[in-house]
Amino acid sequence: MSGLTNRGITLTNRPAGHPQTSDFACVEYPVPTLLEGGVLRRTLYLSLDPYMRGRMREVAGYTTPATLGTPMVGGTVSQVIESKSESFAVGDYVLGYDGWQEYGVSDGKDLRKLDPSKAPLSYALGALGMPGLTAYAALLDIGKPKAGETVVVSAAAGAVGSLVGQIARVLGCLAVGLAGSDEKCRFVTEDLGFDACINYKTQPLDEALKAACPNGIDVYYDNVAGAVLEAVLGHINLGARIPLVGLISQYNAVTPPPGPNLMSLLVKRALIHGFLVVDHTHREEAFQADMSKWIREGSVKVVEDTVEGLENAPEAFLGLFSGKNVGKLLVKVSPDPTQ
Amino acid sequence: MSGLTNRGITLTNRPAGHPQTSDFACVEYPVPTLLEGGVLRRTLYLSLDPYMRGRMREVAGYTTPATLGTPMVGGTVSQVIESKSESFAVGDYVLGYDGWQEYGVSDGKDLRKLDPSKAPLSYALGALGMPGLTAYAALLDIGKPKAGETVVVSAAAGAVGSLVGQIARVLGCLAVGLAGSDEKCRFVTEDLGFDACINYKTQPLDEALKAACPNGIDVYYDNVAGAVLEAVLGHINLGARIPLVGLISQYNAVTPPPGPNLMSLLVKRALIHGFLVVDHTHREEAFQADMSKWIREGSVKVVEDTVEGLENAPEAFLGLFSGKNVGKLLVKVSPDPTQ
Repeated sequence: MSGLTNRGITLTNRPAGHPQTSDFACVEYPVPTLLEGGVLRRTLYLSLDPYMRGRMREVAGYTTPATLGTPMVGGTVSQVIESKSESFAVGDYVLGYDGWQEYGVSDGKDLRKLDPSKAPLSYALGALGMPGLTAYAALLDIGKPKAGETVVVSAAAGAVGSLVGQIARVLGCLAVGLAGSDEKCRFVTEDLGFDACINYKTQPLDEALKAACPNGIDVYYDNVAGAVLEAVLGHINLGARIPLVGLISQYNAVTPPPGPNLMSLLVKRALIHGFLVVDHTHREEAFQADMSKWIREGSVKVVEDTVEGLENAPEAFLGLFSGKNVGKLLVKVSPDPTQ
Repeated sequence: MSGLTNRGITLTNRPAGHPQTSDFACVEYPVPTLLEGGVLRRTLYLSLDPYMRGRMREVAGYTTPATLGTPMVGGTVSQVIESKSESFAVGDYVLGYDGWQEYGVSDGKDLRKLDPSKAPLSYALGALGMPGLTAYAALLDIGKPKAGETVVVSAAAGAVGSLVGQIARVLGCLAVGLAGSDEKCRFVTEDLGFDACINYKTQPLDEALKAACPNGIDVYYDNVAGAVLEAVLGHINLGARIPLVGLISQYNAVTPPPGPNLMSLLVKRALIHGFLVVDHTHREEAFQADMSKWIREGSVKVVEDTVEGLENAPEAFLGLFSGKNVGKLLVKVSPDPTQ
């Protein structure tokens, strides 16, 4: 199996502001010969997520910076094509973190086997993976929604937001989304069953929030920060909970913009709590059980936006910040034998 | 006892921006004849607190707006001078909410008896009263400091802040204050035993916080918001807790200023939680027990700034916003017979 050529997408330049496709390069390099204990796999799906923008900075926040000239990191679903490990056999499907490249090699300690009979393989990168756990743990453990309460979520058509609103509905809450186009809003309400969705680009936020949340806002699941957070703070109820899960609105900012005035937090005795999924792996079991059940029952629909071909990863990634995609953004790097 | 003339300080004008003494008037009006069940008392001490600024707005936040032409509200320690109630006798000392006036009348349901043998009467408005419970409950229940952690508090020389740092020391934490003059800083460290104090008006905040908090900040007890909160967010540790107890820096703002960028909350999985003491009355018993013990032992020193004469209340109140006072600001309205 040696002699294979790997292909990867590397970061060639740390962008200031919005990244460009020219900040990336597609490079080829040999796949190393497998040592004893090693596992070689072919990437089927690559996950594209907003957090990767943070990796592109020289000084990273909660992630280590990407190294210029090496493939960008990222979650992957792969199939084992050669194994010198007792733990993995050729043909096994695995969840890993091989990044933006066609093949991955390691001792297998970074891999988790996937059972394709239980759920489509790609779900391990979305609804049953990191974005799913992010939606589940931040909503349940920080948002603590009670039946009858109002849950608002930004980036409602995205990988995480689309799940948050659906989980809120399962829990008996009023689910209100915020999204950047009428088409996304229609999708979120008609296809995913949110009670309402506000186009934050065209609708006056205060009036729209008031109309969509007649009883005020108990939980605001925030993926974006910025103007939407500021507007939401004007409508929160006593004791409101705000999981701060993302600040997409400022990931491309050169200098950090100011945040919202926090007077409402005091007046309403509300809280904003930063959330990173890495702290919540202890919830994995409950999450897998609940989410699998909800998907099986049809109360949570899984939405994927799949781009074909590794070479299209940079452009697809940039679309995350211009609101192009709906649902979980994936790159199909090679054909999925289970499909 | 009828025929007494009451004297009160009323709000004559809702100020935009910084209040002036001309926004207040000193007026006289008769004390009503006592009805069956009534209690008449003479004010000994009036508490002046930053929250009163909120009352001066037409649209109040967490407090109902003051009515123009009636005495400003406020906590008081008084002595009963006439009683037609079975619950109170002439000579009793009581904690009440009679506001900026020399006499108060009610059915007594709003009064709590004070025992002058246990602590100086005025403490009921400060260290053993609302500011004390504010310091105690927000620090313990939101800040949750553990021994060895670093606790930073703004307005450290004030009624609440001076207690917060001392409680933090009792709990085995490193206590770092922020105050607006070198004199206050010296007072906070030398007299109250804080480990360090930063003059936020003259010292570069980032460097000073770094030097005073070599292990980062675990708890930031915030009384002021504004630039100090912004700077502190750059130095918080993983899982930091920020009780937001006051926003003194903006109480006189005509339009709400922006707040801090919240990226650090995400990166550090930290929380900001708005606090109002009215939600924490269930902590009263534990607070009284602990704080009385700490005061008795000398591990918490009580600092009062007492202004003589009701007519000086407006000017003293304005001083709260220009950093004039140290410790709990009180007006001595009439002589305290226990002193």
